[in-house]
Amino acid sequence: MITPRIASGTMELLPREQRIFQRMFDIIRDGFEKFGFTPIETPAFELKDVLLTKSGGETEKQVYFVQSTGGIQQGHEADLALRFDLTVPLARYVAEHERDLAFPFRRYQMQRVYRGERSQRGRWREFYQCDIDVIGKDKLSPAYDAELPAMIVQIFEELKIGDFTIHFSNRKILRGLLSGSGVTDGDKQTLILREIDKLNKIGIAKVKEAIVTLGLSAKAADDLLHLVTHKGTKSDILSSLKALPLTDLVFKQGVEEIASMVASLQALGVSDKRTVLDLSIARGLDYYTGTVYETLIDAHPEFGSVCSGGRYDDLAGHYTKSVLPGVGISIGLTRLFDLLRSSNQLFAPPPAAEVLIAQLDPALDGVYLALATELRAEGLRVETWLEPSKLDKQIKYADKTGVPVVVLIGSDEKAKGSVLVKDMIAKKQTEIPRADVVKKLRDVLGV
Amino acid sequence: MITPRIASGTMELLPREQRIFQRMFDIIRDGFEKFGFTPIETPAFELKDVLLTKSGGETEKQVYFVQSTGGIQQGHEADLALRFDLTVPLARYVAEHERDLAFPFRRYQMQRVYRGERSQRGRWREFYQCDIDVIGKDKLSPAYDAELPAMIVQIFEELKIGDFTIHFSNRKILRGLLSGSGVTDGDKQTLILREIDKLNKIGIAKVKEAIVTLGLSAKAADDLLHLVTHKGTKSDILSSLKALPLTDLVFKQGVEEIASMVASLQALGVSDKRTVLDLSIARGLDYYTGTVYETLIDAHPEFGSVCSGGRYDDLAGHYTKSVLPGVGISIGLTRLFDLLRSSNQLFAPPPAAEVLIAQLDPALDGVYLALATELRAEGLRVETWLEPSKLDKQIKYADKTGVPVVVLIGSDEKAKGSVLVKDMIAKKQTEIPRADVVKKLRDVLGV
Repeated sequence: MITPRIASGTMELLPREQRIFQRMFDIIRDGFEKFGFTPIETPAFELKDVLLTKSGGETEKQVYFVQSTGGIQQGHEADLALRFDLTVPLARYVAEHERDLAFPFRRYQMQRVYRGERSQRGRWREFYQCDIDVIGKDKLSPAYDAELPAMIVQIFEELKIGDFTIHFSNRKILRGLLSGSGVTDGDKQTLILREIDKLNKIGIAKVKEAIVTLGLSAKAADDLLHLVTHKGTKSDILSSLKALPLTDLVFKQGVEEIASMVASLQALGVSDKRTVLDLSIARGLDYYTGTVYETLIDAHPEFGSVCSGGRYDDLAGHYTKSVLPGVGISIGLTRLFDLLRSSNQLFAPPPAAEVLIAQLDPALDGVYLALATELRAEGLRVETWLEPSKLDKQIKYADKTGVPVVVLIGSDEKAKGSVLVKDMIAKKQTEIPRADVVKKLRDVLGV
Repeated sequence: MITPRIASGTMELLPREQRIFQRMFDIIRDGFEKFGFTPIETPAFELKDVLLTKSGGETEKQVYFVQSTGGIQQGHEADLALRFDLTVPLARYVAEHERDLAFPFRRYQMQRVYRGERSQRGRWREFYQCDIDVIGKDKLSPAYDAELPAMIVQIFEELKIGDFTIHFSNRKILRGLLSGSGVTDGDKQTLILREIDKLNKIGIAKVKEAIVTLGLSAKAADDLLHLVTHKGTKSDILSSLKALPLTDLVFKQGVEEIASMVASLQALGVSDKRTVLDLSIARGLDYYTGTVYETLIDAHPEFGSVCSGGRYDDLAGHYTKSVLPGVGISIGLTRLFDLLRSSNQLFAPPPAAEVLIAQLDPALDGVYLALATELRAEGLRVETWLEPSKLDKQIKYADKTGVPVVVLIGSDEKAKGSVLVKDMIAKKQTEIPRADVVKKLRDVLGV
């Protein structure tokens, strides 16, 4: 006998929670589709040399390699690896199928990714990413950058996770400011941006110390930190930016892009309170080159960002000479679910079956099955109990699985042409004519 | 530069086909949910010693083992493996969570599984299984066996795969017949059943030879083969079975279960032509102990069964002392999709966006974005073109991606308070008042 158990770092849910997870998944997918994005899926494993194009480092250490029994017996090295994100597979997909795709290519992808993490609370070895990107061929107008946060606002409101705020900025602002302060070297700029990204974690004083060490004058560091920590409305901050005596072109472009984003968010009808222009958002990843996004749940800043992304200049430089700029955003659904669960913020599980037809008499199984078919044709989700058992057991089952209505037909009801409808939530049982059963169930279920 | 390519034996689809696949997936899922089944998901990899409980053989040779970079560096043997089906993870799940589940436990699971197959056309290393099972604690009434084929009929009709037939039988019939012919040893019975399962492949003569070699008399072999190849209506075959002078209890139970199944299929409203009682269906797997199902597409018998399953006595004997009988059925979606594609039987791809709002003038982006938000609030899937481009290019894009309607607003239309609606399918363009746009789009789209 083997003790049944799952590998650590993987999430497995009981039916109630799985249905909540599934509902969240569906809401996200519907939200993506409302904006006309098309789904893609890629294989869970890729050829190792295709997946691991980069110089390695942290990410590569966390890769899971895959090998068949045959391969191991023959002493081969693994040539397959599980994807660790959806960005590399997207890059590979777009480069591979470039001639068959229409640009801008608008895809969403909601699949699991894998990381050989150390086992630790909150670290997942298998987790869902819900990624969405718009990818241009040669160019992609910055006008696309407002669409993604507008979509996330709709999705998160429907997920009922409480108040949340999308923080956005544009990396061109900080890069322009640094150039204006004499730090023109791109790599050094990146190092400074990484420090600024730590503001919430280590505080102003330590960040200042770090960026001065990296070569910024104390005055320039103060000015920079004052600007990025300045709170205000989007138009306030835009005005301060426009008032700065800077001629750097990158900076000016960043300001223009932010102004355009603010206007577009308004045109898209995004409530002003849902977004904030926050120049301290720098995103550690060097990958991003323009707009960047982070999403915080107001009541739980300790969760950190639950939905992040931004604009990049070139998606697939490792795979194709074509230049593929894009903008994307990503929800880590497994992590989000886990955080909401731990703070008791999950909504109630939708029921699997809406109606349970109980078995009062096995001789009437044919009656139950025929009724089930009739109700299903009306669009209801219906389960039939067919195991000879006491009614009490069947009612307990309905209670435990969350079925909101039980229909009962015994030989008496059959003779009278009636049915009993038991509302499990109102705890009320009504006898109605058999002919009214669909109407009655729709009433009770509100569908 | 690395050539972008996927690992062999994995399926990756272009957006058009992915949307067809997704629609098929959704139809299957909706069909499962109509019958009140609850979704579960399990991790893609399991602990090796949990997953590989069986004595090995063919299946074990095809397992993919998983190991992190760290594990490889430390010279550890892999302790994780990718699931090769959804049955072993289901057994592990039910045994692990037994106390938290309500029985009968009705779950569906639609996930990918992995097999380290030799690379070969039609052999997939990664493929979707859509499994559905009803699992009882200690017992499960045979009355449940009719529900699964009834559900499959609804699903397959909605998938529009052409005519199909679910063949069913009950292994107790053949076991009883063999006992009646003096072959009472269970293992020998299994060997004979395996030969009978080959009838369609190798023909009557070879099967007869094989089963006579296995110990059946020539007369008994003839009688048996006559019975299993006898074609007729369900009631004809039932009558012949009932008329047989057999007293074997297993046989009698099998006949009763089939009679009950035939009655239940009728009560469930399943069209008579969709199911056939076919005693030659034995399913090679020893796992099944009662009802067995196979589904054939009438126009393509060469596809073999595209949806199979049956009744088993005990799901999780490796993991728990509890006896968990059940009945299940499975659609191999990746294989089915591939077969339908190869025979040009896929339905048309649903569009990603239903409406493309073209950009005639970048200065009107705000107008386009506001209209998009308005249409999305009406439930439409809407894409906005925001890249300054010629109209011709935008129309070509709509054509290539399959967007059925394009909305055009230039400064003239804006001034007049009108919009142009271009029906891409009827190839017709109409100018209408801006206020009528929702109604017009609903008309054109039929939603």
